[in-house]
Amino acid sequence: MAQRKISLNCDMGESFGAWTMGNDSKAMPVIDMANIACGFHASDPMVMSHTVALALQHDVEIGAHPSYPDLQGFGRRHMRLAAEEITQLIIYQVGALKAICESQNTELRYVKPHGALYNDMMRDMSVFESVTDAVSCFNIPLMVLAQPDNQPLLDIADRYELPLLFEAFADRAYLENGELAPRSMPGAVLKDEDDILNQVYQLVHFGKVKTLDGAQLAIEADTICVHGDNLHAIDMIHRIRRVLEV
Amino acid sequence: MAQRKISLNCDMGESFGAWTMGNDSKAMPVIDMANIACGFHASDPMVMSHTVALALQHDVEIGAHPSYPDLQGFGRRHMRLAAEEITQLIIYQVGALKAICESQNTELRYVKPHGALYNDMMRDMSVFESVTDAVSCFNIPLMVLAQPDNQPLLDIADRYELPLLFEAFADRAYLENGELAPRSMPGAVLKDEDDILNQVYQLVHFGKVKTLDGAQLAIEADTICVHGDNLHAIDMIHRIRRVLEV
Amino acid sequence: MAQRKISLNCDMGESFGAWTMGNDSKAMPVIDMANIACGFHASDPMVMSHTVALALQHDVEIGAHPSYPDLQGFGRRHMRLAAEEITQLIIYQVGALKAICESQNTELRYVKPHGALYNDMMRDMSVFESVTDAVSCFNIPLMVLAQPDNQPLLDIADRYELPLLFEAFADRAYLENGELAPRSMPGAVLKDEDDILNQVYQLVHFGKVKTLDGAQLAIEADTICVHGDNLHAIDMIHRIRRVLEV
Amino acid sequence: MAQRKISLNCDMGESFGAWTMGNDSKAMPVIDMANIACGFHASDPMVMSHTVALALQHDVEIGAHPSYPDLQGFGRRHMRLAAEEITQLIIYQVGALKAICESQNTELRYVKPHGALYNDMMRDMSVFESVTDAVSCFNIPLMVLAQPDNQPLLDIADRYELPLLFEAFADRAYLENGELAPRSMPGAVLKDEDDILNQVYQLVHFGKVKTLDGAQLAIEADTICVHGDNLHAIDMIHRIRRVLEV
Repeated sequence: MAQRKISLNCDMGESFGAWTMGNDSKAMPVIDMANIACGFHASDPMVMSHTVALALQHDVEIGAHPSYPDLQGFGRRHMRLAAEEITQLIIYQVGALKAICESQNTELRYVKPHGALYNDMMRDMSVFESVTDAVSCFNIPLMVLAQPDNQPLLDIADRYELPLLFEAFADRAYLENGELAPRSMPGAVLKDEDDILNQVYQLVHFGKVKTLDGAQLAIEADTICVHGDNLHAIDMIHRIRRVLEV
Repeated sequence: MAQRKISLNCDMGESFGAWTMGNDSKAMPVIDMANIACGFHASDPMVMSHTVALALQHDVEIGAHPSYPDLQGFGRRHMRLAAEEITQLIIYQVGALKAICESQNTELRYVKPHGALYNDMMRDMSVFESVTDAVSCFNIPLMVLAQPDNQPLLDIADRYELPLLFEAFADRAYLENGELAPRSMPGAVLKDEDDILNQVYQLVHFGKVKTLDGAQLAIEADTICVHGDNLHAIDMIHRIRRVLEV
Repeated sequence: MAQRKISLNCDMGESFGAWTMGNDSKAMPVIDMANIACGFHASDPMVMSHTVALALQHDVEIGAHPSYPDLQGFGRRHMRLAAEEITQLIIYQVGALKAICESQNTELRYVKPHGALYNDMMRDMSVFESVTDAVSCFNIPLMVLAQPDNQPLLDIADRYELPLLFEAFADRAYLENGELAPRSMPGAVLKDEDDILNQVYQLVHFGKVKTLDGAQLAIEADTICVHGDNLHAIDMIHRIRRVLEV
Repeated sequence: MAQRKISLNCDMGESFGAWTMGNDSKAMPVIDMANIACGFHASDPMVMSHTVALALQHDVEIGAHPSYPDLQGFGRRHMRLAAEEITQLIIYQVGALKAICESQNTELRYVKPHGALYNDMMRDMSVFESVTDAVSCFNIPLMVLAQPDNQPLLDIADRYELPLLFEAFADRAYLENGELAPRSMPGAVLKDEDDILNQVYQLVHFGKVKTLDGAQLAIEADTICVHGDNLHAIDMIHRIRRVLEV
């Protein structure tokens, strides 16, 4: 994985019905991987179809971005579901997007859980195993948070013969244990552009990230998560890409 | 198609969350094809998964039963959607069920639209074309209402290289134009058991059905739709099957 | 009614969860009546609460804006519901907003149905009667489209002792029968600012509106519907208000 | 409150659309207080309207039974919501049912939260305060679980001038801390009829309940929660009532 060029992934297709979110048409040309919402926290069949078409047009890899069933909470609210419920709701959502991809003669390439489901998967190995069980049905990799020690995740994924993709965040501060600092913590989201670019530089060129406490973590990432919410964010993606290509 | 043994199809997997509908465990052993709800008018990922497992156990063919998005109205309320919306919401639902089938190492075999979507498809050729467009992505047949003249449907389906399955109803009265009598019309639903068994006998052995006005229609059916709502209904399926096998 | 100052009403509270719609904080200061969505086509309890607070702050009258149950379609898709279903879903939504108003020590003042429900109510007197039945429970007026002949609506409303408020549209073209031109028709929405201001001037000062065919209709309105979607629209509200005050 | 005759309360109106739950028409005649679902975990405007009419017919007090927004999980899944979200979603649901009551010339008399929201309210005083804040807008009491020490709840409720009703359970086992034993624990739900009747007898006549560990708790209840799911359950209500009247 060390030789692999680091890609940029971005959440896409987060509009819903009459509501628009993000700036997909501007962001899509500058990313490599589109995490497309599947209708449980955002998106609907029309939005999914249009977002797949847009990804195809810009030769961007398509990933499924499944979530807890919570449109009103945008999938950000923790819900306590049974293990099998988690597995089945992921299969449902990923299957729906995969069919939309195939109807446009393209392929679904990976899965990255969204919001509270992503956080729960990283913190609770029984949730991670439910996710793994679901994604392993599709023969495509699961994207997870790169941590200093990925072995616990790899051990479970290996049992399901599921490849993992590891991502790091351009604009989120890390804790010493390798978790992202919760958004409620001061400094959890990097605002200063130089700080963001520096974090990307450290990640890409040295496989390191500095924590909120000033410690250094070794983080090996396949891909970096960026945001396309507005024109400023999209400008940042351009600058981040330039750091990748240094 | 005349040589093909006539099968029995039945709507299944119509429970939702904590609510149970139908008697799937009793009905599944006595049918040939299970039309499984896909979460838009009934069912959820857990119900779908359990219903697929039950079908598999009884060697019953699995079909997708997609609907307009209307849980509260059970997909029975007409909604006016754009053509592309209909296409995409069918791809979404069918893809979701197909993935659940594949996660259990079985295959999705056909699609039969539900409720108001089924009725609209039979009455409005632009809706039928939207449905055809969606189902043709999956390389499996679409089940429609057998009518005296199926040519208008076949013409459209042929353009999409989509095979059709034709179904007749055991307990629904027909109008002279070949449509089902609307439920609001007196006599629309056959209650008398002998009337039901006689309608099946006429369909199976002579390819005919008597209309509410007493006319005879020529109806060639691949499959007959039955109901598994309660123990009485399931007893009727047994008796209908005996008529098939005479 | 002729003496009553003509007010400006505007749809508000159309955000939902993480999705923002409209520019309520800019529009609220320049309108008189806020039609607040009730959670069936847009809004949620938090959005409703914040919108009520905003209306209160700017001394704007609060109206309920109930809809068919269709978040994904923003309440714009026609649905065929039973008469009692329409009545009960309006009571439900209006009651919910009324309670939020009362929790903030203010009052709900009127009801204006939204989207497809509004259109169906104006075209189908049985739908209008279901709406009337619901709104008459609250002892507040129902807002409807002012037409050259309002008598059919008044006859039904009178039986329920329900007062009506009549609204006209600043930027929608009219047909000769007094209906709004459907959005699909060329010229249905006035784009030219002078055309809009002129339509308002004619409505306010002469009680007249010119139809798409060039005919003159007599329309007596209590209130004019304006839009607050963006800064340009809000600028138009300012200019419309100046026409009212000439 | 000590003098008050102990009443029986029961969850009602838990059907949804085409799905039926419970046996409301049989249970309503034998209970005193109906906790009616408000559309977030069960029920819809039609079901609510019919359930209110049924309660009215049998002179049963009507209470609102609001929930987290989770139809698929029947409101039984814990969700982590912000304090204000909890307050507003309760006001919304209670207001909706209150309006349906008033449209039938009857009154809403109390509020009892449902499922996971009820459990969270009993365990987490910040959730309890959000509930209290909401219910205090309606000038009707809030029903909570009677515990050996109700003072912490009373202290908060007093600040909002909110009266509380205390309920005990006929068929649920108690822990030593006064909480209900979680359903996952063996013996959490009493199955033996004599055990249930004995628990009611102890509650009603001695204000005591035996815990799973055999300890005695002092529990002073205004009302006892019973279930009306099926004919057997309804027969139990009759027998419980006879114990009350000894």
